[in-house]
Amino acid sequence: MNANDTDLREGEVRFINEAPFAPDGQLRFIGRVRSPWRSRSDCPKNLREARERGGSALLEIAAPYRPALSGLAPGQWIMLLTWLHEARRDLALQAPRHAAEPRGTFSLRSPVRPNPIGLHLVRIVGLDASTGSIAIDAVDVLDGTPLLDIKPYLPSVDIPPMEAD
Amino acid sequence: MNANDTDLREGEVRFINEAPFAPDGQLRFIGRVRSPWRSRSDCPKNLREARERGGSALLEIAAPYRPALSGLAPGQWIMLLTWLHEARRDLALQAPRHAAEPRGTFSLRSPVRPNPIGLHLVRIVGLDASTGSIAIDAVDVLDGTPLLDIKPYLPSVDIPPMEAD
Repeated sequence: MNANDTDLREGEVRFINEAPFAPDGQLRFIGRVRSPWRSRSDCPKNLREARERGGSALLEIAAPYRPALSGLAPGQWIMLLTWLHEARRDLALQAPRHAAEPRGTFSLRSPVRPNPIGLHLVRIVGLDASTGSIAIDAVDVLDGTPLLDIKPYLPSVDIPPMEAD
Repeated sequence: MNANDTDLREGEVRFINEAPFAPDGQLRFIGRVRSPWRSRSDCPKNLREARERGGSALLEIAAPYRPALSGLAPGQWIMLLTWLHEARRDLALQAPRHAAEPRGTFSLRSPVRPNPIGLHLVRIVGLDASTGSIAIDAVDVLDGTPLLDIKPYLPSVDIPPMEAD
């Protein structure tokens, strides 16, 4: 879903003079997310809200990618990368309802970004590699959102190191 | 860099019957990573190793995307998404040197994946939005790696919630 200048909130700014799509940056969708959320207005704003609201959340992994699930197991925390296919991509400054004034896109977790990739830390609660079905504890994206990647969560690199503070 | 069956280690398996690239999944490169690492054999395996080895690490943000840096500041932890442009994309099972037997791609943090997107939690140590230059504490990708996104790190959603254990 794209948009134009008439869709801007006060203080919002679009990117100008963007380069064309990178010819070597093409994605494969490895599956889809199944969630209870059918419209953007109904979709939880983040995973904390999604966990509070409950409801089932599933990943459907396409057949070619199911062998790559080997080694994942229920109870494990994973990072999902999703393609937020309904998000506009053209805003440099955004005026979220919770913020007093417009903020740069890269300082926000809004789905609106030049590459609308979502990052979600979730827990596997059930997994059937043969059918490519993974039940997860919650998810904060629309039903049908394409899935790009699953990565194991590793506290050794995914939490800021103590010595850096 | 692509590869074929002759490049497989014992136990490695390629994806078969993959779908074509998603027509609506096209990326924009928002900048590049500058690192000391010029070859894959020299590149640290993860951020912990990169921090131990030291050396400068920079993000160069392309001009159209610099206004979106507003709100980021030195000291802040950010998640980078990178496009690991030299990684092959065709392996379902991989035989990393540290593992006793082959493992599914989605249970590994290897750069080899259907969508070679890297995820890196780093700290901003200096930022000049006017030139698009961001110094970071360390990085574990090759010099010149395309940058896809910058997200603020939010412990409220980026650490597993206590109540789930």
